[in-house]
Order: sequence, then structure tokens, then C-alpha cells
Amino acid sequence: MTDALYPPQRLKLVRDSVRAAGLGAVLLTPGPDLRYVTGYDAKQLERLTCLAVPAYGDPALFVPRLELPAAQASPAGSLGLEIVAWEETAPGADPFGMVARMLGNVGAVGLSDQMWALFVLKFRDALPSARLALASAALRPLRIRKTAAEVEALREAGAAIDRVHARVPGYLRPGLTERAVGSVITEAILAEGHATVDFVIVASGPNAASPHHEVSDRVLREGDAVVVDIGGTMPSGYCSDSTRTYAIGEPPAEFTAYFKILRDAQEAACAAVRPGVTAESIDAAAREPIAAAGYGPAFFHRTGHGIGLEPHEDPYIVAGNGVVLEPGMAFSVEPGIYPGPHGARIEDIVVCTATGFERLNHAPRELLVVRG
Amino acid sequence: MTDALYPPQRLKLVRDSVRAAGLGAVLLTPGPDLRYVTGYDAKQLERLTCLAVPAYGDPALFVPRLELPAAQASPAGSLGLEIVAWEETAPGADPFGMVARMLGNVGAVGLSDQMWALFVLKFRDALPSARLALASAALRPLRIRKTAAEVEALREAGAAIDRVHARVPGYLRPGLTERAVGSVITEAILAEGHATVDFVIVASGPNAASPHHEVSDRVLREGDAVVVDIGGTMPSGYCSDSTRTYAIGEPPAEFTAYFKILRDAQEAACAAVRPGVTAESIDAAAREPIAAAGYGPAFFHRTGHGIGLEPHEDPYIVAGNGVVLEPGMAFSVEPGIYPGPHGARIEDIVVCTATGFERLNHAPRELLVVRG
Repeated sequence: MTDALYPPQRLKLVRDSVRAAGLGAVLLTPGPDLRYVTGYDAKQLERLTCLAVPAYGDPALFVPRLELPAAQASPAGSLGLEIVAWEETAPGADPFGMVARMLGNVGAVGLSDQMWALFVLKFRDALPSARLALASAALRPLRIRKTAAEVEALREAGAAIDRVHARVPGYLRPGLTERAVGSVITEAILAEGHATVDFVIVASGPNAASPHHEVSDRVLREGDAVVVDIGGTMPSGYCSDSTRTYAIGEPPAEFTAYFKILRDAQEAACAAVRPGVTAESIDAAAREPIAAAGYGPAFFHRTGHGIGLEPHEDPYIVAGNGVVLEPGMAFSVEPGIYPGPHGARIEDIVVCTATGFERLNHAPRELLVVRG
Repeated sequence: MTDALYPPQRLKLVRDSVRAAGLGAVLLTPGPDLRYVTGYDAKQLERLTCLAVPAYGDPALFVPRLELPAAQASPAGSLGLEIVAWEETAPGADPFGMVARMLGNVGAVGLSDQMWALFVLKFRDALPSARLALASAALRPLRIRKTAAEVEALREAGAAIDRVHARVPGYLRPGLTERAVGSVITEAILAEGHATVDFVIVASGPNAASPHHEVSDRVLREGDAVVVDIGGTMPSGYCSDSTRTYAIGEPPAEFTAYFKILRDAQEAACAAVRPGVTAESIDAAAREPIAAAGYGPAFFHRTGHGIGLEPHEDPYIVAGNGVVLEPGMAFSVEPGIYPGPHGARIEDIVVCTATGFERLNHAPRELLVVRG
């Protein structure tokens, strides 16, 4: 990927942020933190790969010997970063000890939030006097505000998933199973430019009342409302996530009535996005019209989640989250109403701009009724 | 999946194993451990889903409210297991405190090896007097010996990836990039019955000397040796992994010479598999003929890794691992020789049987020369 998306100076910004967070170092194993800092899209495996960024002194990337060529060929290879290979065929090879010796007498160490317990406990033992904390203390303030290049990457992801939603009405035929529809959607997500498929929810009829239902062998039929919530990761590393609710033929009258309330609630929540307001105020903006219409208990999940190199990340749009929105924050706005035996959800990715908001999804938000 | 693959009585076996390991409980977040114990294929997300299995007393599965229908519909829903939903929209919701209150005064707690640091540190704080250990202390002795149903699932995975290798010679055309070949192989892995693609390595010419090279924009040409190492996960949850080395037209003479040595080494290592020998003895059996031919330093990774619900798991076939092989242990045997500017690897999944070994991959292991 381009230097604009993974700029070489980020390593220095992270070091500054490590200092500001009061940490002695961060230790980043493969995953979104490591990719954010170096552009290196390494696999999470049982062999330790770890970037150590001390508050003072030079960072170093520890890799198993057989990953060395891949690390050198990755963007991490051109950062002027020391890359230390450890030999797995040497009995007693101890990469954790190598990292500990490099850090020396360190206070608090931030571990990447998704580091495996397997490694957490090995670092605990290798660094007995260190206090273990989360690397997000240093990385969250950086990752939560997207750069212009990151917003552009999210915009491309949004356009790709919009193209998939544009195909969906053609896939929703009575007589097909959710699983069969999910399978063609999976192919479409890849065909429209994603590198991987993160999730495919095709929730029809009563299944639409379960927000995280995926797919089943239920057969679509006339009168079904169908929640289609789909997302993937682009070659850039950035994610898409968008939900639309469709109907096959005429849906139940109650459904049609509360769908309008949902549509207004999603609109109101998006319109409330601007710098200076809190994350929880967006949640409240979505929840108020739904509660006023008597559907409060039928909206039992948060309104949204941040998105970037992870499909779910900070900031979470939920009651109790007082984070103040700033330009560059990107997150989903996805209220739902699930009274059963049907349900609906509408989801766009929204970016906070200098003056308000920009939606990154543009598929029609109206109820799309597919006629056989 | 069938009860045979995820038998309901496994929960009780795990409890017995928790006691035998001297743990007070294991805490399993989404991932292979949770799926092994309950059949529940939950996604790893920032909201806590956690199965708590105490050494004494009843287990319970904690899930976010919106995952409740999915958890109930999964095989975990029919285990007679208590499923506790926590409400994310309630400010101050503390699922970690709920788990801690259930466990009470507990000694050592085993965390699933792939639990995120995010959760590890929250459990550390919620269970201040507990000693944190790894759940593998209890689960490894169970997971490392596959049941007949698990071996059958691995056999199906092996047959699926063999069918992909049968297609590969048709894809290796001079003028295509590794990336283009990787893309059609990715489609073939899904078309041959895998649910997901775990990795696709197409390492041609000098790239074949980097064992974990994935794909690049290098264009295949006459005289290239090409290492193709591919694997995916089947709908059953079980993984495939197989490597073959191909040549496009006539490869370098040195390559042809050491390929024969590699072929013999892989054969010798497989033939050494039987109950009662150590994992490291299989590594030695692969390494000896390669070292005797002067290529010792060009084989710089371990000989193999276990496979099951994870593409890499215990037992590792590496010097220093004294684990004694038992019937049902399944692992890769994949020596390689990488002198540069070319390299080769041959990999099969092998199961230790009552009397010897069974290979789960049957694609030809000879050098396949593709002529344009």
C-alpha cells in the first residue's frame, strides 16, 4: 500500500504517544496495531512476531527466521527499523527473553489488545517487574482519528460494499435458502474488490429478529423482511460494513410502520454527528424516536462501532461512552428494531468532518420491496 | 455438525481435565477451544463471550444479549448448559464481574491460549487473587489426540486440498503472476468444499527460497520451481494444509538433485511415525538425510506442526519437543530445502495410528514438471 496510508513517520508518532500514555514500551504482535504502525500485514501465529517500541531508544521488530524475507519485503522493511530474526530450530530459543533484554528495566508495558494469552503470559514471566497494560492506551488516540488517506480507504470500502448491496435484490428469490443467498453474496463481496469476507448476515422472516444471526437453511418466502448485513476487508486493510433491510413481496403491516420509524431514527443519528458532541449523544439520537414510538425494548444493542483496520474498533456509539467526536472519527450508525417475528436494521458508515458528517454508504435506505 | 464430531459429553471430559491439570476453572473465549468443547463457532469480538468451566460446579456460557439467539441455536444450545446473557446497553455492564462472581474464590484459572490481551487483563483485574495460566494445560491433552470422527474430518479436508493440487498444474502458465495464480487457487479452495481459505503460498523462482512467502507480482517463467503451499478450513471446523513443488519446464540441475533428497527425507520422516516415538525424533528423521547431503543449513524451519481445529497446533515436530506420539495425533511432515535462488518443500498431513501412520494427502509427491 501507499506511504500515504501507512506513513513512515507513524513509528515516531507512536513513540511519542507511548511516552504520553506513561508507558515504557508497547509490544505489538501481528494484527491491526502492527499493521497500523508499520504496514506489515503479518499473520497471527504461534511463533512470536513482535514489534517493540520503547518510549526511549530505538524500536525493533522480532521475527521468526522463516518470516524474515516476508518482513523485509513488507513496508516494515523500508522503515529503517532493526529486524531481529530468532531461530526456531535452536532448542531453547527464547524470543521473549530477547525482547525483555532489549527493554531492560521497564515500568508499564502496553500489549496489543489482541495479543494472544499465550504471549501475554510469556511476557508476564519474561518481564516480572513490569506492569502489563494495553497498547491501546498509546494507539487508540492515533487510530481513532483517521487521516485523509484512511478516510479515502474507508470510502473505497464503502463504495465496494454498496456495489454488493446493488446486486442483492437480484439474489433474494423465494425458494432459496439464506445459506444459498449468503454464498452468492460472499462471491460478490470478493468480486467487488474486497480481499476477504468478514461477515455475511442474511436474516429472513423471524431470523431478522436476531441481530447477529448469520445464515441458516431457512427458505425465503413471500412476505419476508430480510436483513442483509455484510462487510469485508479491502486490500488496503480497511473494512466495509453496511446493512440494508429488504422485503420479498408485501411485508407485514406492523413491519412497514416501524421501518419508517427506524429510517427516521437512523437519519436523525447521522445528522447529529459533528465535532464536539459525545458518542453517547449519537446513541441517544437514534434511540429517542424509537423509544417514543414504543419500540425502546426492541432496540437492544448499541447504535454503532468505530471502523478502520478492524471491523469493530473505537469509538463505540453506546450509552456511557463520553468520548467527544473529532474530525476523522469513523463509525457505524446502525439502529435496529426487533419486535419479532420480524425485525429491521439500517447501517451506514459515517465520518465526522470539520463541520458535520459524511456518509460512506449510499445504497438506498428506503425499504426495497423485491417482487418475484 | 454432527454429535460425533462435537460430542455432548466433551464438556464433562473437559471438567475432568481441568481438575487433573490442577486448575480451578478454564475461561474460553471464541476460538478453537470454545468450538472444541461446545461446537459453538462464535466470532472473536470486543464484546465478551466466555464459557466458564469450573473444576467443581456447573459450567456457564456468558454471551452478549444480541448473541443469545445464535448461541442457543448453536450446538452449545443443546448441551443443557446455562447460558447467561449480559446487556450491553446498560451503562456499567460488567460481564467480567459476572464471571468472577460465578467462580468465587478460585486458585489457578486457565485462559484460552488465543484469548485477547484485552480480556486477559480484565480477568486479571476481576480475579485479583487468581493465578492466570493457560487453558491448554487442560485442553491440550484432549485436543492433541483426535477421535475417529476428527480424523475423518481431517481426511475430508485432506481430500479437498488434494483436489485443489490436482488442478494446480493447469494454473501454472509462464506469463502469469504469482498473484493471479494465487487468486484462482483461492477460488478452487472454496470450490472444493472449504468454508474459508487460510493461506495461499505461490512461491516461484527465487521466492521459493522464502518458506513463508505468500504471493507477489513476480511473473512465472520457464525454468521456475514453484512451491505451492495451501490450506483452508472445512465447514466441520477442521483444516487442510498441503505443499507440493512444481517446475515450469526444466528446472536448474542442482534443484533436481536436491529435490530427490527432499523427497526421500519426507518419506523417511513419515515412515518414522508410530506410537511411542518422540515428536523430535520425526524432526530428526527428516533432517538427517538433508544434513548428510550437505543441505542442513538450507532447512531452517521445524519439520511440522499439529493440525485440527487450528491450522497450527500441538504437537510441534521440532527439536526439543519430547512429546511421545500416540494414536490420533495428527500433524504435518513438511521438510524443505532452500539454498536459493530456488527452493522446495513437500508437505503431507500424517496421523499416528495404532501401528504406524496414515497419510491424509495423496497428491503425487514426485516433481511435477509442467510443460507449456
